[in-house]
Amino acid sequence: MSWELFEARMHELKDLDGVLGILSWDEETYAPPKGRIARGDQTSTVESIRHQRLVDPKLGELIDSLSAKSLGPAQSTCVQRMKRQRDLAVKVPESLVKETAIARSASLPAWQEARKNNDFPHFKPHLDRMLSLLRQKADALAPASGDRYDALLDEHEPEMTRAQVEPVLRELREGLVPLVEAIVGSGKKPRRDFLARTYPEQAQWDVTMRLLRDLGFDFERGRQDRSAHPFTGGASRLDVRVTTRIFENNPLSAIFSTIHEAGHGLYEQGFDQAHYRTALAAAPSMGIHESQSRLWENQIGRSKAFWEHYLPAVKTVFPKQLSGVSLEEFYAAVNIVEPSLVRVDADEVTYNLHILVRFEIELALVSGDLPTADLPTVWREKMRSYLGVVPPTDADGCLQDIHWAWGSVGYFPTYTLGNLWSAQIMNAYQKHRPQVWDDVRAGTFAPLLGWLRENIHGKGYLRSAKETVEAATGEPLKVVPFLSYLRSKYRELYGV
Amino acid sequence: MSWELFEARMHELKDLDGVLGILSWDEETYAPPKGRIARGDQTSTVESIRHQRLVDPKLGELIDSLSAKSLGPAQSTCVQRMKRQRDLAVKVPESLVKETAIARSASLPAWQEARKNNDFPHFKPHLDRMLSLLRQKADALAPASGDRYDALLDEHEPEMTRAQVEPVLRELREGLVPLVEAIVGSGKKPRRDFLARTYPEQAQWDVTMRLLRDLGFDFERGRQDRSAHPFTGGASRLDVRVTTRIFENNPLSAIFSTIHEAGHGLYEQGFDQAHYRTALAAAPSMGIHESQSRLWENQIGRSKAFWEHYLPAVKTVFPKQLSGVSLEEFYAAVNIVEPSLVRVDADEVTYNLHILVRFEIELALVSGDLPTADLPTVWREKMRSYLGVVPPTDADGCLQDIHWAWGSVGYFPTYTLGNLWSAQIMNAYQKHRPQVWDDVRAGTFAPLLGWLRENIHGKGYLRSAKETVEAATGEPLKVVPFLSYLRSKYRELYGV
Repeated sequence: MSWELFEARMHELKDLDGVLGILSWDEETYAPPKGRIARGDQTSTVESIRHQRLVDPKLGELIDSLSAKSLGPAQSTCVQRMKRQRDLAVKVPESLVKETAIARSASLPAWQEARKNNDFPHFKPHLDRMLSLLRQKADALAPASGDRYDALLDEHEPEMTRAQVEPVLRELREGLVPLVEAIVGSGKKPRRDFLARTYPEQAQWDVTMRLLRDLGFDFERGRQDRSAHPFTGGASRLDVRVTTRIFENNPLSAIFSTIHEAGHGLYEQGFDQAHYRTALAAAPSMGIHESQSRLWENQIGRSKAFWEHYLPAVKTVFPKQLSGVSLEEFYAAVNIVEPSLVRVDADEVTYNLHILVRFEIELALVSGDLPTADLPTVWREKMRSYLGVVPPTDADGCLQDIHWAWGSVGYFPTYTLGNLWSAQIMNAYQKHRPQVWDDVRAGTFAPLLGWLRENIHGKGYLRSAKETVEAATGEPLKVVPFLSYLRSKYRELYGV
Repeated sequence: MSWELFEARMHELKDLDGVLGILSWDEETYAPPKGRIARGDQTSTVESIRHQRLVDPKLGELIDSLSAKSLGPAQSTCVQRMKRQRDLAVKVPESLVKETAIARSASLPAWQEARKNNDFPHFKPHLDRMLSLLRQKADALAPASGDRYDALLDEHEPEMTRAQVEPVLRELREGLVPLVEAIVGSGKKPRRDFLARTYPEQAQWDVTMRLLRDLGFDFERGRQDRSAHPFTGGASRLDVRVTTRIFENNPLSAIFSTIHEAGHGLYEQGFDQAHYRTALAAAPSMGIHESQSRLWENQIGRSKAFWEHYLPAVKTVFPKQLSGVSLEEFYAAVNIVEPSLVRVDADEVTYNLHILVRFEIELALVSGDLPTADLPTVWREKMRSYLGVVPPTDADGCLQDIHWAWGSVGYFPTYTLGNLWSAQIMNAYQKHRPQVWDDVRAGTFAPLLGWLRENIHGKGYLRSAKETVEAATGEPLKVVPFLSYLRSKYRELYGV
């Protein structure tokens, strides 16, 4: 009997998550300008109700009573996952949850406005507010380490700590910096003139829709729309929403945005229907989620085999724009390594240096060592030091990402974890199916998707992040496979 | 202090209404097919939470305590409105609310499927289920009259009863039947060949967007999309969603759908910002809401003055399709009176006879006098008897409306009340501003919108339906103004 009561409460919470997913999708896609601002009232009300339901002592009693019982593995894991969620929520006061939702709804449009007008001071008070709320949250969570950042990281990457992330980022930096230097030093400049030509929006959209379909995205259970900042959301495995963005003079943006979000979307659609409306219909961590988007975007989408298949198709859509462009030229162009300003447009080699900038800055923002007024300056300094480039405007600098405006700190490192895991997972898959590149050359993605479904997607949150990776790859988190992948690929491309 | 507590609860309930508004908008516009079916889980969870909050005894105590206090008129009316809502909700068990939401989410797609395939038996079990749930609801509400239909009507048209509606519909029928006979008997057949030409979708869409803008719809606080069945919804006065539908070979459908929904949308956008998140940001009844859509659609949108202004503009969009069509011909075409099968496409003279068919049938469905298996037959009989036409398929017959599939009974009469009130309101406005038709001829709608805002929209639910009409027009519900409007208009058009 207590299982049924527990399950009904879990369903309710999961439904509210789905509601929040639709509200936020709507806010980012179709809501009218003043409706977006007002949406904060509705979102904060739902979040507050969700919080109240989660911290309800009766749910705590049900969890305690079920924890003492002998249940099947799926049921028992559900109880554990809900216990973790509830324990964290009990520590955060409802008023803080509500205040954060309201602050976010003011912060997001202010950030957009600031970015549009290159006006950091317009955003600064909102950032201060979000950071103050994040510190309050970290203090309320009071992690065992006593480290505020650990508390915020744990939300996105359970069981991971700053102490674990820092050496990984260091090892990675030690591998990346010489690689980037060698590539830049090679003096090789792949042809890119054709990328600046005009690719009409509708035709780009059609290409992204075909890609989504080919990769296995199920349009009976999802859709794609456009938003300023691409994301994956929605209500459940039955209703997954991905977005993309299109620039007429940069066709690769929409293509790789879509493939990236497709990776997230395929993951969400791949949760087991048996886990529908349960705590198991979730990724164990954001890093694992990101491993899927990165695997599709980079390992697959930036492979030569992929473009052997798609370049002819894309050329029929853009015959003039791509006239005379060879496969080798196109493949080189989608893999140009070049220290640049904007993270989401960065190549896969320099990308993690962008993360390093953000990781170090957000550590200092949370601790208070870095006053927000100094953020633009420090951002420029770190960009110069790690990437050798300096943003001429804050819009292309510290205002480029939505994360802090949203109130997410501790999220950035999960991108790098995702990159590392994607290489490990791809290695494991290649051992399982050596003909993977023949598949890709033929535009056949079902075997890969099937394997990911079996080993990762369908498991949902039955396993932790570490368990997921170890079960799928047979090894713990490693930096070397990712570095080896990069070295082997870019040795060929840049002759280094 | 109790006001603040009461207000916070009222805000929460109003926010949940807004959430449900966005969820249902999404379900009808963009949700993927399987997401639409799954949406029932989320909707029923939110409805159930809303119900629990509304029936919470603490809210009852706050209402009782405030009812005994001396408050300002707006506050005191808020308390009354919430008391009515709560009293009704207390009577309906939460399980029934939840079951209805789930049944509805199965019923709606089944109805769509049945309509598409002309397959009434596919829909029948869902209709039986909805009716059974409606009867349970009516019994739970236990109206003073002991009449189940009164309980269901009251939900849409507070304070109105079957005993009040029946004589009105009778008086109307006695006026309409001879008028329709005279028009049909006139033998006059306005030209309509140009309506069957092809009007490309995008161009039609552009026309509807221009109309919305011209009439005063604020796109900062709203948007238009497409759906199978046009409706007005959204989250609040700051986020109003209207929809339209477009048929390439029937340009009037989109135009008048849009003007109709614009009437609803302008009403919602016209609520007072001081009433935001309160029980006063609402129409006092569905009939009053409909009076606004009908006023814009028929009194304004089907007037000769309106087309004196818009026909030249529409001709520039569709020059070939409307080549050689005179103003008189177009005006006659948008006012063709002809007994037909589909309510939403019916002219304003026969429209209320469609309502009569539905009103009588839903009375019999609720009482159980009419088994659902006989619905198609009885529908055909009544159509023959009142309108002289018989639908060849159920898709054009008893499956045409969403209402019963949605679980709405007692809604149809509000359309007729809206028609009657729209004529009374327009008479009052003409007394106030005799140059109204010069305004319309000039495409100037701000004076009318301003007057409606002042006398109706901005009042929201400060006044009941009857008080609203009497304050705006100086008279109670009357049939004669509507009949006089029709007679004078169609005397000219059909020479009767």
